[in-house]
Amino acid sequence: MRRAIISSYSKDEDLLGLASLCRKNSIELFSTAGTAEFLNKNGVPCSDLGSITGFKSLANERVKTLSPVIYEAVLSKHDVPGHPLEGLEFVFVDLYPFPARGRFSDNIELIDIGGITLLRAAAKNHERVLPFFEYEDAFEYLENGADRQKRMLLSKKTFYYTSYYDSLIANSAEGDFPPKFTLAFDGAKYLKYGENPHQKGIYARIAASEKSLADIAVLENKKSVSYNNFLDAYHALWTLKELKNPAVCIVKHGNPIGVAETADLSKSFELAYNTEPDSAFGGIAAFNRPLDKVLMEKLREYFFEAVIVPPGSSAELAGFFEKRKNIRIFEGDPLIDFQNTFRGFGGMTLFNEDRSSPIELDFRTGRENSSFTADIEFGLAIMPVFASNSIIIVKGRTLLGSGAGFPNRIDALKRAIEKAKEKARGAVLVSDGFFPFSDSIDLAATAGIACIVEPGGSLKDKDVVAAAEKHGICLVFTGKRMFRH
Amino acid sequence: MRRAIISSYSKDEDLLGLASLCRKNSIELFSTAGTAEFLNKNGVPCSDLGSITGFKSLANERVKTLSPVIYEAVLSKHDVPGHPLEGLEFVFVDLYPFPARGRFSDNIELIDIGGITLLRAAAKNHERVLPFFEYEDAFEYLENGADRQKRMLLSKKTFYYTSYYDSLIANSAEGDFPPKFTLAFDGAKYLKYGENPHQKGIYARIAASEKSLADIAVLENKKSVSYNNFLDAYHALWTLKELKNPAVCIVKHGNPIGVAETADLSKSFELAYNTEPDSAFGGIAAFNRPLDKVLMEKLREYFFEAVIVPPGSSAELAGFFEKRKNIRIFEGDPLIDFQNTFRGFGGMTLFNEDRSSPIELDFRTGRENSSFTADIEFGLAIMPVFASNSIIIVKGRTLLGSGAGFPNRIDALKRAIEKAKEKARGAVLVSDGFFPFSDSIDLAATAGIACIVEPGGSLKDKDVVAAAEKHGICLVFTGKRMFRH
Repeated sequence: MRRAIISSYSKDEDLLGLASLCRKNSIELFSTAGTAEFLNKNGVPCSDLGSITGFKSLANERVKTLSPVIYEAVLSKHDVPGHPLEGLEFVFVDLYPFPARGRFSDNIELIDIGGITLLRAAAKNHERVLPFFEYEDAFEYLENGADRQKRMLLSKKTFYYTSYYDSLIANSAEGDFPPKFTLAFDGAKYLKYGENPHQKGIYARIAASEKSLADIAVLENKKSVSYNNFLDAYHALWTLKELKNPAVCIVKHGNPIGVAETADLSKSFELAYNTEPDSAFGGIAAFNRPLDKVLMEKLREYFFEAVIVPPGSSAELAGFFEKRKNIRIFEGDPLIDFQNTFRGFGGMTLFNEDRSSPIELDFRTGRENSSFTADIEFGLAIMPVFASNSIIIVKGRTLLGSGAGFPNRIDALKRAIEKAKEKARGAVLVSDGFFPFSDSIDLAATAGIACIVEPGGSLKDKDVVAAAEKHGICLVFTGKRMFRH
Repeated sequence: MRRAIISSYSKDEDLLGLASLCRKNSIELFSTAGTAEFLNKNGVPCSDLGSITGFKSLANERVKTLSPVIYEAVLSKHDVPGHPLEGLEFVFVDLYPFPARGRFSDNIELIDIGGITLLRAAAKNHERVLPFFEYEDAFEYLENGADRQKRMLLSKKTFYYTSYYDSLIANSAEGDFPPKFTLAFDGAKYLKYGENPHQKGIYARIAASEKSLADIAVLENKKSVSYNNFLDAYHALWTLKELKNPAVCIVKHGNPIGVAETADLSKSFELAYNTEPDSAFGGIAAFNRPLDKVLMEKLREYFFEAVIVPPGSSAELAGFFEKRKNIRIFEGDPLIDFQNTFRGFGGMTLFNEDRSSPIELDFRTGRENSSFTADIEFGLAIMPVFASNSIIIVKGRTLLGSGAGFPNRIDALKRAIEKAKEKARGAVLVSDGFFPFSDSIDLAATAGIACIVEPGGSLKDKDVVAAAEKHGICLVFTGKRMFRH
């Protein structure tokens, strides 16, 4: 006799379909009272497990299947002759999903004990009894059976699922990470390759994330999203995060190379593009407003690997680029989670959680000059995205030049000035770290920089302030370092 | 009556200590047969759970505690009057640790079902029955009790532990990640701060890692290791990974700025330092050999935030720097895991797994010239560590100049040449990506570069080859892009 245990939270068509298929395959079904009643009412014979265990439920419905009779059948290496569950082939458990973003104290009743134990026990004894928690796996098994390898993979999948489930529970409770912890992911997909063609790449949603960048891949156009597209898209959206007017950001190799925010999206694009026209080829262009037809038409003249537009505005643009093979069009949500990042390398992981508070500007030379206000705000909004060490030069809420990822500050400044050229005159310069020496101030003065914004905190701050004073530069300390390594 | 369930894999002093303390607190103990026998034999009275459940074990010892009588006691919201486990306060389960790096098929018997279920059930019902899997938590409870908040934290810790346990099991089985999966970490510690002072930072070991960079923190000297120290240390060790002779690497802001490998460590240090002496201040210096006294003495003249030396060789160096407050001394193991990295951002995560095979050099101009062999090998060994886009210039197994993290290749080249100066003459240039145009080749020729190594694959490869031919430069294609974003 073939037998199976089915325990399902939802009583629906899927459950009826699976149960019916089992019966067609002459599999006798056992279930907890609620499921058995539902199936019998709908014409699919199913026995109540209570008839084997001798009890219906204990501890206010919390204990139904935790019985040695059931587990003898699920866990015995060899079938037990004469056992009421002799011939048990699988357990199917459809759990009520534990809310990934709920509050622990609100959801304690939802924590499943019996269903998880059934799945874990079958996963352990997978060579004889299979664990299923998704309908398609059960259907697939009923159709094609499962060899040893397939059984092992179903076991692996199940232990990851029970691990995922408990990770969501633990994560929902307040408090720090204990020494041993896990991170839960879903929607894992294999990329064409990783960071480089000889590397394997995978992306996945963080299970607790409300708005995940992983979702942009759903809207991919023709070419699949790549490892580096994700990174560039993140940095482009991060750059646009605080910019409320029509803004455009162009990212190349992880750093913004053009950013502009004006009253008009086309104008912003033109300005952003012109900061480093020699580097924009093959980059990512992100827009915080839907594109009009004129801008779409104009965009055809350029080559970007990907274009990011606001949610709901990709369809027409995708039509425009239908014949271009090498472009990806994504919808990027400015509401994705920018607060938390982590990196794994060398057998370890580092977590970084932002706890920013508003910056208070400390004018060290010159009075608070309102002509700089808009550009200081713009500069500080985009500064965190540039790889450290970095210097940016902005004016008219436009990035005029940048030096990112430099080992010393003066080289970063040199490159920023080189890109900004004569436009640096009267502009605002923002630095992600303090200036160790006053030589950078002298150089900035030569280029005509009118205002310098930096964290402050160098041993030589006094020299830096004196140099700014001498050159008539407005020097502003923020007290906030903005490294991105 | 106070009662507790104890189930321990190891029968040792800790177990006896906990059981004795329970008895001193008039807590009646219940346990599975093996534990009960051990305790009774050692003079600590303990009842066999079998006397309550009515069975000793089923399914070849796989089923011992999966009984409704036990779970009624563990899971009932309110104490059950007259129940043989009335007054149950906690369950203590000491599991045999599942091997983080074993093979799934070898360890199936080790997968615990009953103990995990006991812990999960108590964690659910933590307001009445506490879950313990570590002795210190149980001792702490017996001494000080636990308020509501503490009970919640013990529940959180337990669900992370059961999640961790199942993650190790799933991870040990071969095959791809299923859509839902977890990553398991241990040894989580909170850093002084994250990437920047306004950010919170945490580091942890990847549970499955054999040699983790997290271990270097154990050897920290005076100042605690910082978020960016870990990143820099990783890049420094990665740079040294393939270098078998005495070698030194200096890293600043995540990129190597000096690397040299000679027959003598002091010589290597001098060469590595002199590539970018203006940027080395505050960087990390890593050595692949223990330092002799002369070099230690010499090192005092410089300021590095951290110094990394081979395992077992830090003690004397730490003595030398005893009076210097701002230096950290680490032991770095060249055997840490460099194959797998991951990054989490924007509510998603990206995994990258290296699957490198040896590079085959394709000489496109010039014959295979043995005078370049050593430097091509050296250049390709360190190239993967530089942030893309990057260009490096090497000669005599020394980095002479680099441009890393640039949005276009010619700017990277310009910086590398600027740093190498006249030493570029006759040197080998390595590029992490292909050259999109032949202008870089012309510029390299002007600087006197003798050999160029790059992946190839540009639409304009023909122009690039022609330019190399024209300038008499030996051009080598590797077919291997080496981006690091």
